[in-house]
Amino acid sequence: MKVLVINAGSSSLKYQLYNMNDESVLASGRVERIGMDSSIVTHDAAGKPEVRSVSEILDHVTAVKRVIEMLVHPELGVLKRIDEIDAVGHRVVHGGEAFKESVLVTPEVKLEIRKLFDLAPLHNPAHMMGIAAVEANLPDVPQAVVFDTAFHQTMPETSYLYAIPKVLYRRHKIRRYGFHGTSHQYVSDKAARLLGQPLESLKMISAHIGNGASVTAILHGRSYDTSMGLTPLEGLMMGTRSGDLDPAIVPFAMAKEDLTMSEVSSMLNKHSGLMAISGSTSDMREIVEAMREGDKNAKLAFDMYTYRIRKYIGAYAAAMNGLDVIVFTAGVGENSVELREAVCSGLTFLGVELDRERNAERRKDPRIISTDNSRVRVLVVPTNEELLIARDTYRLVLQTKKPDDRSKEIIEKVE
Amino acid sequence: MKVLVINAGSSSLKYQLYNMNDESVLASGRVERIGMDSSIVTHDAAGKPEVRSVSEILDHVTAVKRVIEMLVHPELGVLKRIDEIDAVGHRVVHGGEAFKESVLVTPEVKLEIRKLFDLAPLHNPAHMMGIAAVEANLPDVPQAVVFDTAFHQTMPETSYLYAIPKVLYRRHKIRRYGFHGTSHQYVSDKAARLLGQPLESLKMISAHIGNGASVTAILHGRSYDTSMGLTPLEGLMMGTRSGDLDPAIVPFAMAKEDLTMSEVSSMLNKHSGLMAISGSTSDMREIVEAMREGDKNAKLAFDMYTYRIRKYIGAYAAAMNGLDVIVFTAGVGENSVELREAVCSGLTFLGVELDRERNAERRKDPRIISTDNSRVRVLVVPTNEELLIARDTYRLVLQTKKPDDRSKEIIEKVE
Repeated sequence: MKVLVINAGSSSLKYQLYNMNDESVLASGRVERIGMDSSIVTHDAAGKPEVRSVSEILDHVTAVKRVIEMLVHPELGVLKRIDEIDAVGHRVVHGGEAFKESVLVTPEVKLEIRKLFDLAPLHNPAHMMGIAAVEANLPDVPQAVVFDTAFHQTMPETSYLYAIPKVLYRRHKIRRYGFHGTSHQYVSDKAARLLGQPLESLKMISAHIGNGASVTAILHGRSYDTSMGLTPLEGLMMGTRSGDLDPAIVPFAMAKEDLTMSEVSSMLNKHSGLMAISGSTSDMREIVEAMREGDKNAKLAFDMYTYRIRKYIGAYAAAMNGLDVIVFTAGVGENSVELREAVCSGLTFLGVELDRERNAERRKDPRIISTDNSRVRVLVVPTNEELLIARDTYRLVLQTKKPDDRSKEIIEKVE
Repeated sequence: MKVLVINAGSSSLKYQLYNMNDESVLASGRVERIGMDSSIVTHDAAGKPEVRSVSEILDHVTAVKRVIEMLVHPELGVLKRIDEIDAVGHRVVHGGEAFKESVLVTPEVKLEIRKLFDLAPLHNPAHMMGIAAVEANLPDVPQAVVFDTAFHQTMPETSYLYAIPKVLYRRHKIRRYGFHGTSHQYVSDKAARLLGQPLESLKMISAHIGNGASVTAILHGRSYDTSMGLTPLEGLMMGTRSGDLDPAIVPFAMAKEDLTMSEVSSMLNKHSGLMAISGSTSDMREIVEAMREGDKNAKLAFDMYTYRIRKYIGAYAAAMNGLDVIVFTAGVGENSVELREAVCSGLTFLGVELDRERNAERRKDPRIISTDNSRVRVLVVPTNEELLIARDTYRLVLQTKKPDDRSKEIIEKVE
């Protein structure tokens, strides 16, 4: 079975085509600048040269059409016929409280996603355009949606409620949702397998540290608490987001700098975090480089950033009354030796003992970087949200098939 | 030496008169409803009946005049003459970055306090009225000011800076200040004495849990991080304050409920916290009572409240890479057996082992409530901000006296 994974933004669309027999990526690419006359399509098929073309792509329907053309292209493509695409899986940022797991797209599901536009005004409408564009191009292909929030729907009330009048939750569903759920779920599962221990037996903290960043307390395999909240602004300091701050700063800054609410929101989301403190970059590699050259602002940005990750790890160890495993993932988490060193060196009281050589290895596979004696195991697990979307889509589509059809597929499925 | 301690609010004024020879309270009381024709003076002198009178007190000058009248009253008073008051110490909420410790009042000091009106618009102007009222009534008596923020001025940048554009700090001093500093300082000092260990050797967390509540990481005797921020809104869930929340909730709630900024501020400060979640009360005793009777909202409020204290303790243990002592203080912290039990029972991973019998004792003295084997010692230490204000005032005034005058006083001083 072949599954096409799509992550649709308002002016972009990323895709991967998976062969689910061996979970290999047959092709991947992206369409950028949708809605402009100089849209860019980048396409990379296994074993073929990457190609890039510029053309006018005015909407998502055309974007998906172009993707399919690339996939079945006689020279650059990987499919003989369109109908080799068995299913399409979409990333959807916000599933609200309606979606506790991935689901097949139905008219009811689309209605629910629409209801959540308010909670994710930048993302959900774009995802819906992606779904509609696939329907227009591949009307008979089943689609599934995989939500960034779904994994966190297991959080207890004590974690997800804010201490504000309940009417705000009842009327407007203002609560903690958390994001990066697909990633936290993927790496926690992978970590347990690598350790050879059942996920259900572990107290784990996963640190998804990319340009956006969040930490999740995963108690016995289920999200128990997470640092992002109603929106991805809360929690850790990020590339350009402030993370946690006194809510009273919002009106104070508005009054002092004569800003509108939307200017403050923009400031906190796009001009804060590492960028604001370093004064020059939100890129952790550049910050580490500048720090080495003696840049004090870069050092401060690095120290604030890692200090806050450490505090969240302590908080979540307390939330679960214990800690067995820390997992680092995503761009920075997977690649920054310095970040992992800084975070872990302040956690020896928990029984964290990093193996400096293991930590310093530049590898791409999931691995343990703590010493053999470390009471808390520390892992690096490269995340793969697209693969989890492909797997969920595959599983959901299989469930709708007749038992006879399924047996063949299941036999061929490779973990 | 006798020191009068004053805590002036916009329409109230509390006072205590201390005999610094034995640190005993000679008299205490409060003036309420200043500015109205039915102001209330309550006065309680040692060994005499408490009295209450209603009269017109239109300003702070008159309020202080009335306090002095009570102190020298032939029957209800404790002083023969006004000039027995050797010094006056004031509580001042916000000392900004200007004040890292208590100081004697000078024209420069008053100017600095005025500059901080913006940061504490509800408090500092009232404190200034108190200072002016004492000047008007006792022109020759030295005055000192003791700041709620001063103890936290030792925090490193990594703790006090928010990850927002630095111009907000440079221009408007938007940063974490922290509050309850006098209390955190008082109880940490007391705890170290009780344990017979130098404060400088300890990693301590003090939990000041009253109607307002904050947690402080005290590393080797100095405030290293604290949960309240630019304002007292940040941090723990409180009686009526929300504590931490996604800053994006501010604009979201404004839009959804058609609220103004000041209505949202009022909501987060006055109608959130325990009050919002329990739906009926911000009083921890009533919440525990209701919880016992099966009230689910009360249980949820209690669980959220204690969960967040636990998370902060974990976070600050990580901030200091270890923990030796937890101190509970203030109204709820000193009195709620249930709260301390709930917080500590989830911290066994840190080596916290509460002695249930010791915890359940209803006593008023500082005491250890962990077991003898507990790796982290847990203490209850009743706070006494007024005494610390009196001590600081006494010390500052002594320093201005000639060495000869001082020796006598110091000999008489009792710890």
